[in-house]
Amino acid sequence: MHRLELRPLFGDVDVMNIVYYGNYLKFFEQGRAELMRETGRPYAELADNGLHLPVTEAYLRYRKGARYDELIEVQTTVAWIKKASLRFDYKIVSNSNPSGGIELVTGYTTHACVDLDGKVKPLPAWVVEGLRQHLEPGT
Amino acid sequence: MHRLELRPLFGDVDVMNIVYYGNYLKFFEQGRAELMRETGRPYAELADNGLHLPVTEAYLRYRKGARYDELIEVQTTVAWIKKASLRFDYKIVSNSNPSGGIELVTGYTTHACVDLDGKVKPLPAWVVEGLRQHLEPGT
Amino acid sequence: MHRLELRPLFGDVDVMNIVYYGNYLKFFEQGRAELMRETGRPYAELADNGLHLPVTEAYLRYRKGARYDELIEVQTTVAWIKKASLRFDYKIVSNSNPSGGIELVTGYTTHACVDLDGKVKPLPAWVVEGLRQHLEPGT
Amino acid sequence: MHRLELRPLFGDVDVMNIVYYGNYLKFFEQGRAELMRETGRPYAELADNGLHLPVTEAYLRYRKGARYDELIEVQTTVAWIKKASLRFDYKIVSNSNPSGGIELVTGYTTHACVDLDGKVKPLPAWVVEGLRQHLEPGT
Repeated sequence: MHRLELRPLFGDVDVMNIVYYGNYLKFFEQGRAELMRETGRPYAELADNGLHLPVTEAYLRYRKGARYDELIEVQTTVAWIKKASLRFDYKIVSNSNPSGGIELVTGYTTHACVDLDGKVKPLPAWVVEGLRQHLEPGT
Repeated sequence: MHRLELRPLFGDVDVMNIVYYGNYLKFFEQGRAELMRETGRPYAELADNGLHLPVTEAYLRYRKGARYDELIEVQTTVAWIKKASLRFDYKIVSNSNPSGGIELVTGYTTHACVDLDGKVKPLPAWVVEGLRQHLEPGT
Repeated sequence: MHRLELRPLFGDVDVMNIVYYGNYLKFFEQGRAELMRETGRPYAELADNGLHLPVTEAYLRYRKGARYDELIEVQTTVAWIKKASLRFDYKIVSNSNPSGGIELVTGYTTHACVDLDGKVKPLPAWVVEGLRQHLEPGT
Repeated sequence: MHRLELRPLFGDVDVMNIVYYGNYLKFFEQGRAELMRETGRPYAELADNGLHLPVTEAYLRYRKGARYDELIEVQTTVAWIKKASLRFDYKIVSNSNPSGGIELVTGYTTHACVDLDGKVKPLPAWVVEGLRQHLEPGT
């Protein structure tokens, strides 16, 4: 599991002082980007090889909103990897409380591996290898 | 069904010239806001009555990306209405093609009805009445 | 002068129920995009010719915040056009009040004309012609 | 001077693979928020005291765009502090190059100190004290 701490900005929250429901998808992006960087193979390297991982599906379950400047943690894992697609799972928890770990938002994103023409391509072995470290099926 | 036409801005698209995956949730918000306005009961009226409809779940299926300045249409319907919750369904299609109607993104959002303290409250009768006009179960 | 009416979304406002200070730049973009479309020469046509108008400077003066769902108007004019650069001026007013015309935010953006390699290029005559209709120096 | 390192996300850049011109204002917000946190007096403490520092003016000069995933640094200083207003100056540089320090975007924001009714109020002494550490007039 990859852990990323961040604090929502004024530009992230809405009038109820909780993060706007669409902005969690940016936190998810940041979570998976940093997970990939940690494997030693940042997303940018994939792009340099003419491949992309566009999101094909996204799901979010909102339990409690993250507030302005609250210390939150994006926990990212790899749920599964197939030949030309994969899924990341996310859990955002609040770390502002000393007892910690209050679950705020959970969700997932599925991705296809495509080339610059949008054609589906097998995931390169070096990507699969890196991501396998974070594989946690059944999360 | 409520139809809303719009054109993605530079601020909406990413480097692949398609709308960033999180920004469709803003188009969904705009779709349901204009649907509610059309019923004669804009969301702001609900807020004036101390009630809110926070999103409890969101799902998106990305088939094809909407491009910069492309004329797209957000089609919004009400999937179901319960005592204190409801679900909107969305379909975003491209209208840039004369043959029209190329499906880009579909999805839904579920909402709870809560008061300012976050307590679940029954949906007011006048809200239910207005939304029933757009009820299309099985969409 | 080009006039564009719009309503801020929840995704645009912050915790004080006024539009986040960075999001007015999206309204400015929408203002100048629709002004160009009205001239019969949308920005996309420029891009199709391998030219871009990146922003080189932006200025905003915030007098009063635009609120959620408030009917606002983006008034866009062309302040000046030079050989390879131009400036748009913007005034955002509230139309929610029957007496109308409460000034909320004013500002400007300057743009250079560049090709795909980022080299400065003269503005095409057909762009200059279209924009001249909206020229209002001294605004 | 306060230094903050960050990396633009896909959600920050536009089709030309540079950060959308409005999104730098979020980086500016993050810069001044972290500067204030470093003084031991985070912005949230001000808000807890019923005070806010809304932006009254913002200016940006775009020299070179920040690219996706590029390591950039937001350098924030305090330009001046008056009785009930202040100004932050910003410089965003690229740290991706070993020679470093390529200037991308510069700008400033001015702020008024107001209470919850929007009335101008003197800046509390403890805020002034903290910010004075980062005062660099003539930047």
